[in-house]
Amino acid sequence: MNPKFIPPQDDLKIRLMRVQQIMKEAGGDAALVSTDVNIYYLTGIVFSGCIFIPAEGEPLWFVQRPSGLMGEHVIYIRKPEDIPAILKERNISLPETLFLETDQITHNEFLRFEAALHPAGTGNMTTLLRKARMVKTPWEIEQFRISSKIHAEIFNAIPFLFRRGMTEIELQVDMEYVMRKLGSIGYFRTFGANMKVFMASILSGKNADAPSPIDFALGGKGIHPILPIGASEDVIAEGSAIMIDFAGNFTAYQSDMTRVFSFGKLPEIAYRAHQVSIDIHNRFMEEAKSGMACSDIYNRAFDAVEQSGFAANFMGFSQQAKFVGHGVGLEINELPVLMSRSNDLLQTGMVIALEPKFVLPDIGAVGIENTYLITDSGVEKLTVGEEEIVEVGMK
Amino acid sequence: MNPKFIPPQDDLKIRLMRVQQIMKEAGGDAALVSTDVNIYYLTGIVFSGCIFIPAEGEPLWFVQRPSGLMGEHVIYIRKPEDIPAILKERNISLPETLFLETDQITHNEFLRFEAALHPAGTGNMTTLLRKARMVKTPWEIEQFRISSKIHAEIFNAIPFLFRRGMTEIELQVDMEYVMRKLGSIGYFRTFGANMKVFMASILSGKNADAPSPIDFALGGKGIHPILPIGASEDVIAEGSAIMIDFAGNFTAYQSDMTRVFSFGKLPEIAYRAHQVSIDIHNRFMEEAKSGMACSDIYNRAFDAVEQSGFAANFMGFSQQAKFVGHGVGLEINELPVLMSRSNDLLQTGMVIALEPKFVLPDIGAVGIENTYLITDSGVEKLTVGEEEIVEVGMK
Repeated sequence: MNPKFIPPQDDLKIRLMRVQQIMKEAGGDAALVSTDVNIYYLTGIVFSGCIFIPAEGEPLWFVQRPSGLMGEHVIYIRKPEDIPAILKERNISLPETLFLETDQITHNEFLRFEAALHPAGTGNMTTLLRKARMVKTPWEIEQFRISSKIHAEIFNAIPFLFRRGMTEIELQVDMEYVMRKLGSIGYFRTFGANMKVFMASILSGKNADAPSPIDFALGGKGIHPILPIGASEDVIAEGSAIMIDFAGNFTAYQSDMTRVFSFGKLPEIAYRAHQVSIDIHNRFMEEAKSGMACSDIYNRAFDAVEQSGFAANFMGFSQQAKFVGHGVGLEINELPVLMSRSNDLLQTGMVIALEPKFVLPDIGAVGIENTYLITDSGVEKLTVGEEEIVEVGMK
Repeated sequence: MNPKFIPPQDDLKIRLMRVQQIMKEAGGDAALVSTDVNIYYLTGIVFSGCIFIPAEGEPLWFVQRPSGLMGEHVIYIRKPEDIPAILKERNISLPETLFLETDQITHNEFLRFEAALHPAGTGNMTTLLRKARMVKTPWEIEQFRISSKIHAEIFNAIPFLFRRGMTEIELQVDMEYVMRKLGSIGYFRTFGANMKVFMASILSGKNADAPSPIDFALGGKGIHPILPIGASEDVIAEGSAIMIDFAGNFTAYQSDMTRVFSFGKLPEIAYRAHQVSIDIHNRFMEEAKSGMACSDIYNRAFDAVEQSGFAANFMGFSQQAKFVGHGVGLEINELPVLMSRSNDLLQTGMVIALEPKFVLPDIGAVGIENTYLITDSGVEKLTVGEEEIVEVGMK
């Protein structure tokens, strides 16, 4: 395995300490963490089983699969019911208050852990881990840099891939191929039920306004009723905007980035709306820094949108999303959410995707998305690349 | 949307009646179904929200997203807490025993539904729906036929794609591209926590024996620690077996199929083990039919394996899977499971993947997988294509 993908022990220690601190504050004695994404966060690998995290002291890795894992923390178990006896052997008392990933594990998984350890009370470890993961460690930030550098380059392929007469899905499939050749891990990790999407979204013309059941910024009808999101089998029409929104998963940390291309020239209104998005980004770059309220970012963006006259087109037309950005990381929809009812403040080390977008019925969607690192003094753009609408297909 | 992907009302009615029958037998008054896969099963579309299914009578579709759905069953809600008032308005009494998808929805989703409808008792709708989905309807079988016909053809691309010096992941990415061009929906649907994989698996040489945390038939180390399964960045070595295991998702119904290629000639032992797999398939074709015990299929296969002397290599070497096949459908790992402790019998309308495989350390994995339809009189092979090991790369 490429050593650049292996987190150093020091970095894992920062994460563990942060998680233990948050858990102590929330009144937890211990947690059992069993989802792949959080096991990866805490260990740098994925195994089947769970991690026992006491509020203080060393964690235990209870591993069911794969065979052959080594290390001081590794204890092989056959089933969760084996855990109490192992804790007893090690003179670790069973937790009174046990935190479990109750927004991720199934109800029956919860019942099984509860029956095995019979705590007096339980708490929500999902929320705590999402809070911990919201602020990235130095190594995590480095992984973002690796990913977003490649990510920013992929958009340069569009003018070479686009052909007159092409459907959205044909362009998407060609872009997927480019991304996979450049090392994309492929799998698009999201948080929450029913948040499935395949790699990315390309929307043009009318499809930009097709409402989707899936709670992403924009919709699209997809190519099959079972996955009603994103690129369709519609031919990309001359005079339409082509919005390309791919997550950059060249490491485990997914940057988020959107750019717009046009098949020929667009009506002037599209360039104006696109410029409103760029202006919101530029103002964010000037104003945002650690300590700013996430609600402020949304409200300022929305004010600018209202002044521009594009409020009806903001974050959708037939169906509008109520946020303008979100944290990114191991999952594409991490905390904080940039929305008016957020209580979060920006913190140094947060990595955030800002995506003011406008859906113009019949033309398509315009606006850009960048991923930013929050620092003490401001923000750093991680996804650097051409932001204007680039014309394709007229040679 | 392509009309061939829209299920006829009659077919949806068969499913609903089957589900209601099973629920009545299990003592349920009503169910709330909220996972995308089961909503699709019951309606032919995906929406955000849930379906209220009474033990008798018409279901109600409680929709949150997308906007614009029409139909007699559609009722828009803002949140699950709106449901009781709507039921009351329609003179539908709140269910005493409410079935929820407790092996799929999160613990907190469960608590929310429970608090909204406060039933006296709850039951496991996941199990019932998996039981219902195990036997396919006429339209579902037709979808399998569409998908598996294309699926069987993709393997013919391998000799054209393979190049000396290629890595596993390079070959996989080229195959993904072929599949997407032929209409693959992309997203690989699986049942269960931590069962993520990206489209497929290509394993050669040593990587065939790399143990994975993910509970598929075989492992592989993958290209990144966060997705430790399948194709690696190892160069495919001359003299190694290349096992290609892709799900055919050209419709929502995923056929499963595996074929083996060799880079040059393999040691004779590999052809012998591969023939054991083919023999197990041929015997299955002769003997299996509705009414046969799934445990019998496993036990007969295992007996043949033991007689062949390849028991140590069966379904893995360092880490062995304890099944030889599984139902397929909207998810790749449906019921029944072909294992010795199964209590299921084959039924007409089941669609099953049989995959006796052998891992030969240093050479790779051999053996084939086909998807079969169970009929009253026998089985029908859906994934028809060359079954011998095909040599590549020596021109």
